Amino acid sequence: MVSEKMKMLGSNRSVIRELFEYGKKRAAEVGAENIYDFSLGNPSVPAPASVEAEIERLTKAMEPTALHGYTSAQGDAGVRATIASNLVSRFSLPVKADLIYMTCGAAASLCISLKALTCEGDEFITFTPFFPEYRVFVEAAGAKLVPVKSADKTFQVDEAAFEKAITKNTKGIIVNTPNNPSGVVLNSESIAAIVRVLEKKQAEYGKPIFIITDEPYRELVYSGNPDSPFMKLYDNTILCYSYSKSLSLPGERIGYIAVSDKMADKGDVYAAVCGAGRALGYVCAPAMMQRVVAACDGQTADVSVYKKNRDILYNSLTKMGYSCVYPDGAFYLFVKTPTADAGEFSERAKKYDLLVVPADSFGVEGYVRLSYCVSTDMIERSLPSFEKLIGEYK
Amino acid sequence: MVSEKMKMLGSNRSVIRELFEYGKKRAAEVGAENIYDFSLGNPSVPAPASVEAEIERLTKAMEPTALHGYTSAQGDAGVRATIASNLVSRFSLPVKADLIYMTCGAAASLCISLKALTCEGDEFITFTPFFPEYRVFVEAAGAKLVPVKSADKTFQVDEAAFEKAITKNTKGIIVNTPNNPSGVVLNSESIAAIVRVLEKKQAEYGKPIFIITDEPYRELVYSGNPDSPFMKLYDNTILCYSYSKSLSLPGERIGYIAVSDKMADKGDVYAAVCGAGRALGYVCAPAMMQRVVAACDGQTADVSVYKKNRDILYNSLTKMGYSCVYPDGAFYLFVKTPTADAGEFSERAKKYDLLVVPADSFGVEGYVRLSYCVSTDMIERSLPSFEKLIGEYK
Repeated sequence: MVSEKMKMLGSNRSVIRELFEYGKKRAAEVGAENIYDFSLGNPSVPAPASVEAEIERLTKAMEPTALHGYTSAQGDAGVRATIASNLVSRFSLPVKADLIYMTCGAAASLCISLKALTCEGDEFITFTPFFPEYRVFVEAAGAKLVPVKSADKTFQVDEAAFEKAITKNTKGIIVNTPNNPSGVVLNSESIAAIVRVLEKKQAEYGKPIFIITDEPYRELVYSGNPDSPFMKLYDNTILCYSYSKSLSLPGERIGYIAVSDKMADKGDVYAAVCGAGRALGYVCAPAMMQRVVAACDGQTADVSVYKKNRDILYNSLTKMGYSCVYPDGAFYLFVKTPTADAGEFSERAKKYDLLVVPADSFGVEGYVRLSYCVSTDMIERSLPSFEKLIGEYK
Repeated sequence: MVSEKMKMLGSNRSVIRELFEYGKKRAAEVGAENIYDFSLGNPSVPAPASVEAEIERLTKAMEPTALHGYTSAQGDAGVRATIASNLVSRFSLPVKADLIYMTCGAAASLCISLKALTCEGDEFITFTPFFPEYRVFVEAAGAKLVPVKSADKTFQVDEAAFEKAITKNTKGIIVNTPNNPSGVVLNSESIAAIVRVLEKKQAEYGKPIFIITDEPYRELVYSGNPDSPFMKLYDNTILCYSYSKSLSLPGERIGYIAVSDKMADKGDVYAAVCGAGRALGYVCAPAMMQRVVAACDGQTADVSVYKKNRDILYNSLTKMGYSCVYPDGAFYLFVKTPTADAGEFSERAKKYDLLVVPADSFGVEGYVRLSYCVSTDMIERSLPSFEKLIGEYK
C-alpha cells in the first residue's frame, strides 16, 4: 500500500523526540521550571543581531521578485563567491564558487552528497558515536553504513580498527568534528591517521575513497580557533556545512556543500551533486536566507554561553563522581552511566525530572548525551538532582 | 566513481535552462530590451506587500530562537491549523492540521509523496503535456512514469486512453490543473472521468489508486474562482501545494502536502510521508517562511497582470494565424508550431530574438510553450517579431 520502509521511518520516533515529548507532558503537570530537559540540540542562544538586520535590509533594498525568486540550482552566484572567498581566507581551503552548492541545511548536504556518490554495493564508514540519522541518510542513498569503534574513553580514532574496516566497497567515510553526540574534537593525531589510512587504501584499491566532513559545529569550539582540517590535507574531500548551530538558524534550513578544487574528479562529483539535488526535489536553497548567511558568514551567535554551560556541567558532574568525556566543542556532554544499561539510567533520571538521552542509538553503550544548549540557570538548578541520581548507584 | 544517473541529471541542462542561458548571452550582445524571453516560469509580479510586512512583524514580535528554531518535522502546529482551516473554508476539503505536512515547495511535495507511496514495480500515470521533472521525481522514487495522451487540441482527459493505461501496477496518478505547460484547466467532464475510471479500477484491482494533485497554479485562474476539485470527489487524494506562484515566492521553497481525512489508510500514508521527508533530508520546512505563508494563505500576487498578458498574447497570436490552446490558468500559452518540428521552430524564432520552448520534453510534439510571466511591455514589443516569424511559414 505504501512504502513499509518510509512508514517505519515516519512512525518510529527517535528516542530523543520521545524524551522531548515526555518532557512537554511532564512540564504541563509539574511546571516547566521543574523539568531539566537535556534532550534536544536546539540552539538556546539567539542568532546574532546582524541576521535580523540583514533580513530587514534585504526586504527594503531588493525587489521582491529578485529577493524571493529562484536562484540557480547551485545557489546565487554572489552568495557562492562570498562563501568560497571566506573559506579560502579563514581556513585556506582549496574551494571556489563554482564548486559550492547551497543546500537546505546539514541533512540535505549529507543526503545530496551521499546520493551523488553512491553506486550499487557501496559502503560508508563512520566513527562511533555518531548521529543516528547518518544510518537513515546512507541507507536512503542505497548504501550501507559501517560504524567503526572509536578509542575507549577519548573517542579519538582507533587507526587499526579504521584500517581494518575499509574494503573494496568503501566509497567514503563521514567524519564529524566537533562531534554530535560526544562533543569531542578530533585531535591532530586522529586527523593524520584518517588521512594516512585513506591515502594508503586509495593506492591499494586504485580508486578514490571520499571524506564527507560534516561540520555544523565547526564554530562551536572552546579552545583554539575553528578549523576545517580535512580538505587541506586530503584531495577527495566534500565539505558539508550548515548555519543551524553557528548562526542559531536550525529551522531555516540553510547550508552548503563544497567540493575540493584539488579533487581529480571534481567536475563529475559536482555534476552528480547537482543531479542528486534535483532528484531529491531541492530546486534551490531558500533564496533570502542564502543572502542572509552570506552576509553573516563567519559570524556566530554568542557561543561563550555554551562554554560557560560546559564548564559548569562538566566540572560539577565530574566532582559528583560521574565519568564524563571532556567536550571541546559542540554543545553536548557525553556521560558514562554508572550502570551498563544507559536506558535504565535514563529512566531512573526521569524520577528527578532529568531528561538525558541514552547513547545506544548513537552506536555506543553505557553512555548518555546531555545537550547543554539550555539556560545556565536551568543547569545550576538541575545539579542537586544529578547529585541525588548518582547517589542511587553508590 | 559517482552515480552515473546523478551525474547525467546534473550535466544535462533542461532545454528551458539552455534557452534561458542563451538569452542572457544574447542580451549582453544586443541589449536586454531586444530579447523576448518567454522561456522561464519565474513569477514577474511581486509578492503581495503583506509578505514583507509579515516578515518585518515576525522579526520584531518573535524571539529569534523561536522564529528561527526547528519546528516539528510536520511543520509548526499553528501554521498547519491555519492552512487546514483555510482549505476547509475555501474549498470544503476534508483535511485537518494533523494530516498536513509542510514542505520545501512543490518539488519537495511531489518527491516526498512519491517516495512515501512507492513500492517495487509501481507505476504513476500522468497526462500529456506534463512538467518534465515529473519523470525525474517518479524515477528517483523507484517507480515508472506512464504518460497518457490527452485529447487533441483541447488537452482535456481522453477517458478511454486513461482507462486503458491503468494496470495492476498503477499506484497512482499525478494531475496538474491549471497545467504547466499548456495553461489548460481541466473541465468538470475531465475531472469526473478521472474519478469514475479510478473508482472502477480500484474496485477491479481491489486496491487503492492514489491521486496526487499538483496545484501550484491553483490561484492563477482567469475565469471563475480557484478550486481544488479532487479531494472533494475522491478519498485517496494527496494534495501537493506550493506558494511559489500564488505568492510569487519561488526561491523561498515553501509549500505543503495534505492527505485526505477520508482516505482509508490516511494514518499509514501520513506516516510514510513523514518518513520520506526524513529519508530525503527534509528536517522541516523553512521556519520563518512557514509563518509568513500561513499569515498570507489565500492571498495572491496581482494575477490580473497575467490575465492581461494572456489576453494580449492569445488574441494577437491567434489573429496572426497561430493556433493556440486557450489557457484558462497558470501563465503559459501553448502554441501549435506551423511545422511539425517544434525544435526547428524554436531555433528559427531565435533569429527574431524570440525565446520559446519546444514542448517535446513535455511529452507533446509540434508545440512550443510561451511563459507570459513577463512584462506586458515586452509582450507588446515582441508582437512584430511573432508576425515576421509566422510569415516565414506562409
